[in-house]
Amino acid sequence: MSTNPTGFITVPKGLAKVVVTDTELGDVRGDEGFFHYRQYSAVELAQQVGFEQAWHLLERGHLPDADELASFTAEAGRLRVLPQGLADLLPAVCATTSDSLQVLRTALSAWGGIAGLRPLYDCHEDEKRAAAMAAVAITPTILAAAHRLHRGLEPIPADPTLTHAADYLRMVTGQLPAARDARAVEQYLVATMDHGFNASTFTARVIASTGADLAACLVGAIGSFSGPLHGGAPSRALEALDEIGSLDRADGWVRERIGSGARIMGFGHAVYRTRDPRSEMLKTIARGWDDPLVDLAVGVEDAVEAALAELKPGRELHANVEFYAGVVMKLAGLEPSMFTPTFCVARAVGWTANVLEQSRDPKIIRPAARYVGPPPPQPVPSGTRTPLPA
Amino acid sequence: MSTNPTGFITVPKGLAKVVVTDTELGDVRGDEGFFHYRQYSAVELAQQVGFEQAWHLLERGHLPDADELASFTAEAGRLRVLPQGLADLLPAVCATTSDSLQVLRTALSAWGGIAGLRPLYDCHEDEKRAAAMAAVAITPTILAAAHRLHRGLEPIPADPTLTHAADYLRMVTGQLPAARDARAVEQYLVATMDHGFNASTFTARVIASTGADLAACLVGAIGSFSGPLHGGAPSRALEALDEIGSLDRADGWVRERIGSGARIMGFGHAVYRTRDPRSEMLKTIARGWDDPLVDLAVGVEDAVEAALAELKPGRELHANVEFYAGVVMKLAGLEPSMFTPTFCVARAVGWTANVLEQSRDPKIIRPAARYVGPPPPQPVPSGTRTPLPA
Repeated sequence: MSTNPTGFITVPKGLAKVVVTDTELGDVRGDEGFFHYRQYSAVELAQQVGFEQAWHLLERGHLPDADELASFTAEAGRLRVLPQGLADLLPAVCATTSDSLQVLRTALSAWGGIAGLRPLYDCHEDEKRAAAMAAVAITPTILAAAHRLHRGLEPIPADPTLTHAADYLRMVTGQLPAARDARAVEQYLVATMDHGFNASTFTARVIASTGADLAACLVGAIGSFSGPLHGGAPSRALEALDEIGSLDRADGWVRERIGSGARIMGFGHAVYRTRDPRSEMLKTIARGWDDPLVDLAVGVEDAVEAALAELKPGRELHANVEFYAGVVMKLAGLEPSMFTPTFCVARAVGWTANVLEQSRDPKIIRPAARYVGPPPPQPVPSGTRTPLPA
Repeated sequence: MSTNPTGFITVPKGLAKVVVTDTELGDVRGDEGFFHYRQYSAVELAQQVGFEQAWHLLERGHLPDADELASFTAEAGRLRVLPQGLADLLPAVCATTSDSLQVLRTALSAWGGIAGLRPLYDCHEDEKRAAAMAAVAITPTILAAAHRLHRGLEPIPADPTLTHAADYLRMVTGQLPAARDARAVEQYLVATMDHGFNASTFTARVIASTGADLAACLVGAIGSFSGPLHGGAPSRALEALDEIGSLDRADGWVRERIGSGARIMGFGHAVYRTRDPRSEMLKTIARGWDDPLVDLAVGVEDAVEAALAELKPGRELHANVEFYAGVVMKLAGLEPSMFTPTFCVARAVGWTANVLEQSRDPKIIRPAARYVGPPPPQPVPSGTRTPLPA
């Protein structure tokens, strides 16, 4: 970091550890292996409260009492039902791509128009909250519909009487989920709603800082989330488990991967220097199933960590949220193609809460860059003068 | 700015003058009233070269020679023709919103799937360039089609034999433009292709830093661009001229606006402390028409600047790019609803050039924030335990 006489401040590329604003939403303490939503441990929340309660906490600032929860849940249920204009458009959008995240990106962009969203700059707080709540509510409905349309199945309409997590699973699979499956996925969703100033959250806030509408912010966030360096892919960790197949092959597999310079998917994190608290929680949830996949996952985790500690000493490479997320989602009945979309169902809460917070700050986010090309101005070469067009 | 013992760096909110990366694309020197693309004055380029030449310069790094220009222009012309899947989808997208920028946002998102764009992370340089060129090429075609569909008119297919600027005008109006009109709009487009690390450009770069596909980056950029604090609205400056109506009412109008605390649209800029070089150039272009609107605009500019100098001394509030852009576009035959979309036709070049540059940097952009809410962790209240869902 340096400041020059003209007042420009140079910070490290990638902005790691560059504090760009204040937030009341939460924080990730990478050195402590701890993250929180407002004043509560996120893991403790995931263990104790439902999706709607954590959503209310992040968006409204406090855990709901019984009456608030009942009306919030009922409203969320009503809002899960797709507006007809969007339901009509979805088959055509699904025909453009087999990627459900891309469908969500396009569908939420169109929804901004269908719902008549106004720029955040022009909205009162109530209008912003209503838009945020609707956007989070329709996200699972869009993703489940895309999943089914891509398989030639009819989308299943939302059931406003169910909880968000249970209704999502029902809309994907077509069956009312077992209580254990619904609760496992709900705990995963609560634990992944928000996680500091990651690239998608920051993208949403940069767009919000211009006063644009909420759909503009979410569409950008989904764009960042789809990046291989960001959103991750819980399905890749599961693919690795498939590839390893049995526990006795784990050690050889990891040594071969490291020897060839390949990344070990599902291990290591940009911020945590400890075990990933989300991974620890998901491992406990996975153990609720008496399934050989869980034994394999636990054994592979141990083998990989042991091999990494030996081959990359001092790097603190532990299983991250991806590793057990895939195991839990698979056991709960979700196909690997729905792992990243399911992550998105959760993250929609964090994105909208961040957008609402950012929209209260009147300052547009507009950084600077240092020009390092050939010195200007050089005269435009005379031979390049353009003829009048057309 | 401050650094604390844990290595966190705190920078001003909004990141003004915070240098986040290096660029070889250009720079804005706000104190000098000068901006450049690579090593050339942008205004000089606008005066001397065509859209395709400046586009080639920003994307490929140098002004094209005659052969390069011919093949680049021919390729751009071919790429302006919409893929059938996108042409088929546009009427349904236009039915969701009357806002052409929202149509572009949704259409480019869908196009990413239709074109089978891969994540930038997985692309070779040639594949990135091809995607960037195609995205810039279809932008005017989408916007012109949206303009016509919103009015119940048939879209006009692109004519690959025309230049980008002339074909855009033809696709909007249905008529081959006069050479003067096409060249005036072309100069406007060249002068507004890129302009430092504004919010939309930065958004595109944050998304690119995750390795996401090009459509993801552009959709986010369009989102930021649509924000009232960013994209601006050349139509608002023209509305002010309409409202003033005649020169003798200019002084009274501006004093009343300032007295009531209202902003004077078309005056002042976040970076320039001088006259806006784009405004100066556009004024010269506008004077090419012998039209009373030009006399009114010049007179109003003088009156507003004189009143602002008296009422807000030391603030250096001059006509910005918006002020004469609207005048020039109107004289060239564009309706006010197409002013901001036309700005987008230009900026697509800057966004894609920035995305390509960012995609060569392996670092994801992930800043930090300071938590300022109630201290965690506080135990989750026992009464809030969730029942098992469904």
